[in-house]
Amino acid sequence: MSNSGSVTIHDVARRANVAVSSVSRVLSNHPDVSIKMKTKVEAAARELGYSPDPVAQSLRRGTTNLVGLVVRDYANPFFAEVISGIEEVLTEAGYTLIVTSSGREATQETERITMLRQRRVDALILATVSDKSTSTRKAISAFKKPVVLLDREFPRLSTASILLDHASGLQAGTTDLLSKGHRRIALITGTPDIRPTRERVRGFEQAYRDAGIDPAEATEIAVVFSASFAHEKAVELLRLPVRRRPTAFIAGGVQATIGILEAMSELGIRAGDDVSLIVCDDLPWLRVMRPQISSVSRDAVDMGRAAADMVLSLLGGSTPSSVMLPTTYHVRETTQFAPGSRR
Amino acid sequence: MSNSGSVTIHDVARRANVAVSSVSRVLSNHPDVSIKMKTKVEAAARELGYSPDPVAQSLRRGTTNLVGLVVRDYANPFFAEVISGIEEVLTEAGYTLIVTSSGREATQETERITMLRQRRVDALILATVSDKSTSTRKAISAFKKPVVLLDREFPRLSTASILLDHASGLQAGTTDLLSKGHRRIALITGTPDIRPTRERVRGFEQAYRDAGIDPAEATEIAVVFSASFAHEKAVELLRLPVRRRPTAFIAGGVQATIGILEAMSELGIRAGDDVSLIVCDDLPWLRVMRPQISSVSRDAVDMGRAAADMVLSLLGGSTPSSVMLPTTYHVRETTQFAPGSRR
Repeated sequence: MSNSGSVTIHDVARRANVAVSSVSRVLSNHPDVSIKMKTKVEAAARELGYSPDPVAQSLRRGTTNLVGLVVRDYANPFFAEVISGIEEVLTEAGYTLIVTSSGREATQETERITMLRQRRVDALILATVSDKSTSTRKAISAFKKPVVLLDREFPRLSTASILLDHASGLQAGTTDLLSKGHRRIALITGTPDIRPTRERVRGFEQAYRDAGIDPAEATEIAVVFSASFAHEKAVELLRLPVRRRPTAFIAGGVQATIGILEAMSELGIRAGDDVSLIVCDDLPWLRVMRPQISSVSRDAVDMGRAAADMVLSLLGGSTPSSVMLPTTYHVRETTQFAPGSRR
Repeated sequence: MSNSGSVTIHDVARRANVAVSSVSRVLSNHPDVSIKMKTKVEAAARELGYSPDPVAQSLRRGTTNLVGLVVRDYANPFFAEVISGIEEVLTEAGYTLIVTSSGREATQETERITMLRQRRVDALILATVSDKSTSTRKAISAFKKPVVLLDREFPRLSTASILLDHASGLQAGTTDLLSKGHRRIALITGTPDIRPTRERVRGFEQAYRDAGIDPAEATEIAVVFSASFAHEKAVELLRLPVRRRPTAFIAGGVQATIGILEAMSELGIRAGDDVSLIVCDDLPWLRVMRPQISSVSRDAVDMGRAAADMVLSLLGGSTPSSVMLPTTYHVRETTQFAPGSRR
C-alpha cells in the first residue's frame, strides 16, 4: 500500500493530465476543488499506488500527528506506566508518541526539545530534569505549540501541567507514624530541584507542625540520587546509637525504596517489626514482599491519560490549565507502633 | 542561536548578494564552492542568526542523524538498561535516539516502523513483538537502511542482530538443579514467538537430555504473558500433591519472576528452603530479597552498546552480521538440594 518513494506528485499529475498544483490541492483537501478534479486525481493516485509523503506533507500543513515526550531516563518503572496511559489515548486519537531522554542533563534536554521542535511534533509532554533550568525554560518558550508538563512547575511559563498531590499522601503517612509514637522519622528522597520532592518534604513537615512538633529537631531529611546513595545513607542511619536511630523510614521514590530495603536486608532488620517503613509508589515487585509495605501511591496510567487528554484539548484550541491528581496513603503491615510507645 | 523560522535561505542569499543555490551549496558542504563564496555566505548567515532547517536539510541530504527504536512496551526494566547503553554510544556519535512502542501488537509495530521510515530515521533498532510476523518482516524489508534486531531472528532477512546466549545460562542453571536431585522443575516463561523463550526452553531441555532424563516426562513448561498468569500458574503448581509438585522453579522473565515470588509469599513458601528458584535477569530490586536469588544474568547496558556500535558500523558501510553475547548462571542461596536428596 505504501509507496516506496518512486512515484511522485508529478507522476500523478501526468497520469491525470492535470497541473501539479491541482494534485496538491486535491491531496491537501483544499476546499476550492471540483468533484470532477478530485475524482480524476484520486483515481490516478490509486492506479499508481501513490501515497503522499508525510514529511513533505507536514512541511506544507505544519502538522505531523506526532507528540514528543522527553523523560529524564527510561529506568523509572513509574514512567513506563505513565507512557502506557499516554499512548493509549494518543493512539486512539490517531497520534503517535515518540520518546526521547534527557539523560538527566539540562543541556541534553534542551537539545532534545529543540530536535523535537525541528521535527515538527505537534505537542510536547515533558518530565524535565529540574524545574529551575533556564535553558529548558527557554527551549519550552521557543516551542510555540502545546506543552504539557508532568509534575513540574516552571515560574513564568504558561504551560499546562498534570500535577500530583504528593503533599497530602505524605502528610497522611507521616501523621500515622507520629500517632504511633514515632518521632525520629528519616525521609529519604530525590532532588529538591523537582516539584515531587518539594511537595513530599512539605507534606512531611506539615504533619510534624500539625502535631505540634518541630520537624527540624526530630527528623533526618536525606536527599539521594541513586539506590546506592540511599543504601549507604540508610546503613549509616540504622547504625546510629539507639537514642538517635530513626524508628521509621519514608522512601520518596524507587531508588530510595531499593536502597532502604537493601540496607534493612543486609543488617537483618525486618520492616515493620524493627523499623517502620512507608514507600512512595506501589511498584509491581512490592507485591512479592512480606510483610506488605505501607505506601503512598498514585495512579501512573491515569496520569498518562490525563496528560494525553490535555494535549488533545490544547490542540483543539483550549487554554493551558493544570490538573491535580490525588495520592493515597495505604496502611499495610510495615507501619507499627514505635518501640516503647505501643499501648 | 537557533533561528525561529523567520530567517530563510533567501534572506541569507540577499544579504550575501549571491544566488540561493550558492547558499544551499555552501550550507550542504558541496565540494564545488570557492573559499570566497563560503566566507561570504557564512558571514551573512551568522549576521542574520540563520541556522539551516534540519527537516528541509534532511530532505535534501537524505540523512537525519536520528535512530529509531521500537520496543514491545516500556514496562520492562531490562529494556530501560538496554536503552541507556544505546543512548550512551549514539549520543557520543552525534545521533539522537527516538523510541516508540508497538504495544505488543504486530499491526501497530508495522505502523511504527513505517512512521520511522517516513520520518527518515537513518537506522532502526527493533525488539519486535514476534519474529514470525509477516507484516513486520515486510516493514523491515521496505526500510532499506540499516536495521539491528535485538535478540530476534527473522527467517530470510539479512539484518544485523545482537543475540544473547540464553541457552547456555539456562542449561547451566538446570544442570545445577538436576545435580542437586531435582527432577520436577517448572520453567515458567514468556511467548515462544520470540527467540529468548525458544533458547531458554532449548537450554532447559538440553540439560535434561545431557543428564539422561526425558524432559517431557519430568517437567512443566508453562508459557505466561503477565505476572498475574505466572502467579496463577505458580499457585496451581505449588498446590499439587507432594508427589507431583515441582521442587524447583525457573522464571524466564520479569513477569514470571514477580508472579512466582508473589505466589510463594502468599503460600508462605520460602525460596531456597522449601522450593528452589532460579530467575532470569538480575533486576535491581532482587538485591533487596533474602535469601539471595540464584539467577541467569545478562548485561543489558552492554547489549545496548553493542546494538548502537552495530548501527554505527552499518552506517559506515559494513555488512550486517550477528553478535552473540553471553549469559551467566550465578549460584546464590535459592538453589538447594531437593527434599530427600541432600547428602
